[in-house]
Amino acid sequence: MALTTRLTQRLGLARPVVLAPMAFAAGGRLAAAVSAAGGLGLVGAGYGDDRAWLDAQFDAAHGEAVGCGFITWSLQRTPEMLDHALARGPRAVLLSFGDPRPFAARVRDAGVPLLCQVQTRGDALLALEAGADVIVAQGAEAGGHGDRRATFTLVPEIADLLADRSPQTLLCAAGGVADGRGLAAALVLGADGVLVGSRLWATVEADVPDGLQAAALAADGDATIRSSVMDIARGREWPERFTARVLRNRFTERWHGREDDLRRAGEEAGRDWDEGWRAGDPQRANTFVGEGVGLIAAVEPAADVIARMTGEAAALLGRG
Amino acid sequence: MALTTRLTQRLGLARPVVLAPMAFAAGGRLAAAVSAAGGLGLVGAGYGDDRAWLDAQFDAAHGEAVGCGFITWSLQRTPEMLDHALARGPRAVLLSFGDPRPFAARVRDAGVPLLCQVQTRGDALLALEAGADVIVAQGAEAGGHGDRRATFTLVPEIADLLADRSPQTLLCAAGGVADGRGLAAALVLGADGVLVGSRLWATVEADVPDGLQAAALAADGDATIRSSVMDIARGREWPERFTARVLRNRFTERWHGREDDLRRAGEEAGRDWDEGWRAGDPQRANTFVGEGVGLIAAVEPAADVIARMTGEAAALLGRG
Repeated sequence: MALTTRLTQRLGLARPVVLAPMAFAAGGRLAAAVSAAGGLGLVGAGYGDDRAWLDAQFDAAHGEAVGCGFITWSLQRTPEMLDHALARGPRAVLLSFGDPRPFAARVRDAGVPLLCQVQTRGDALLALEAGADVIVAQGAEAGGHGDRRATFTLVPEIADLLADRSPQTLLCAAGGVADGRGLAAALVLGADGVLVGSRLWATVEADVPDGLQAAALAADGDATIRSSVMDIARGREWPERFTARVLRNRFTERWHGREDDLRRAGEEAGRDWDEGWRAGDPQRANTFVGEGVGLIAAVEPAADVIARMTGEAAALLGRG
Repeated sequence: MALTTRLTQRLGLARPVVLAPMAFAAGGRLAAAVSAAGGLGLVGAGYGDDRAWLDAQFDAAHGEAVGCGFITWSLQRTPEMLDHALARGPRAVLLSFGDPRPFAARVRDAGVPLLCQVQTRGDALLALEAGADVIVAQGAEAGGHGDRRATFTLVPEIADLLADRSPQTLLCAAGGVADGRGLAAALVLGADGVLVGSRLWATVEADVPDGLQAAALAADGDATIRSSVMDIARGREWPERFTARVLRNRFTERWHGREDDLRRAGEEAGRDWDEGWRAGDPQRANTFVGEGVGLIAAVEPAADVIARMTGEAAALLGRG
């Protein structure tokens, strides 16, 4: 079933679905599966501090065209990683969480489409200055890092901004899109496509321990929280405005709201978190998923998720 | 242009739009205008502590059929106000922010449709126990009081819950619905209609000082904040989970994050807030609007807002 939009036309996709480049979870296997299913697969290059891992992910895509996404404030510390990624001929590059302007020219000069994920209208103005080909409006319902604004109002407000200032710039919605209803809603709100995180995190191709996926399947949408405690524990120095949405668990119950105590607890708390993370323990470390977790009933192949999502959306919009 | 849903059929409406019963702003004039435009007008009976005001609002509706909405935790202190409202023959009663079960039987026995506004999936289970005719799923992007979950995921998750447990119960979306895109998105997410606050707050019939409406028109969607400082200042003892979304201003900049200091400042801070409120001063008191404020360009008659919203939605959904 076809669901053609400006995004599918401009980027040569069969379906208007982009894989959120989730650090650690979105490796080459998942990115390749999404691209093979007609979407745009993006490897989660994350903090930009692990060249060998990134190379392995491009290798693992086995020739399927995939791109990658970076955490912008962290990439500023290792800007050479962008050149390294561009040398791999990525299908697209996404930048999120920070000012994209210092990196935009290199992406553009390489002839690679630039996606800038933004969390506020103010961020979108910077993304326009950077010359983004696609702006991804990310609402706070998203899993993992984000800010405060919600998908439902951020998308139409940025659609209006683009219509006024830069009609050729495309728009994707991110945050809470977990099924065909979400995709259809994003399109009527003014988006040309969607960026999907949690729903593709819960797939057989995602690099996610079984224990975390099981915790997510058991959770409803009330079960998440935005917090900074996991970043304090593992020593990731995120700018204050960006918190991460995770499943509430023993760790967040203990430390959320006691951030100063956690900082004082220091290495010991961090070591326990790291051990829990390596063990895939959903109580000691964190399960990075969004509010859409209440809409996920099974771990499936990514291709099935994407086909169902686009088919449902097409039916809802009368494009069946 | 018709936009028929289960909500319009069941409640005898011409358009699937319900006025959010905003305390102070949604008086009899606005409620009557919404009902006259084919929607369901609800007077904001608010804290349930002002019988004369509520009577005046039903009188001001001049025979147009309107209902009213209460803040449930506050109504528990003055339960006789529900009987008083029911004696006025309301078209519907909405309960929000607290357990509706103690009040449901009286509404049902009066033959009045009961709408229960909920902020989480957990709340929705209580609303089902109460026998709500309509559940209103309110996201945190809403203006005024609310909780944390977002419209974009809460609506489909509660739609799934109702499909499973109580298919005859209707569902409305609230929070961020400010134009036809929002109405269309709510419908494809699984709602039968919408509850609209901020967009109808910015109308000529709303009981809102000009200065606050002007502040809202000048704001974009990044300009709001959820906080408790206004409730501390004016001595409204809201349960901790419910904060209010307002425009950031001098008052929130001074006190948000310094709640304990504000409590110590006591009466003086409260007096200044109250004076600002009475004067309609958007810096000394607060302007209660949601993130959808970035989608509002003019103060208009409510009938124009509703006709445009439903017409745009019908066109987006191919029901033109």
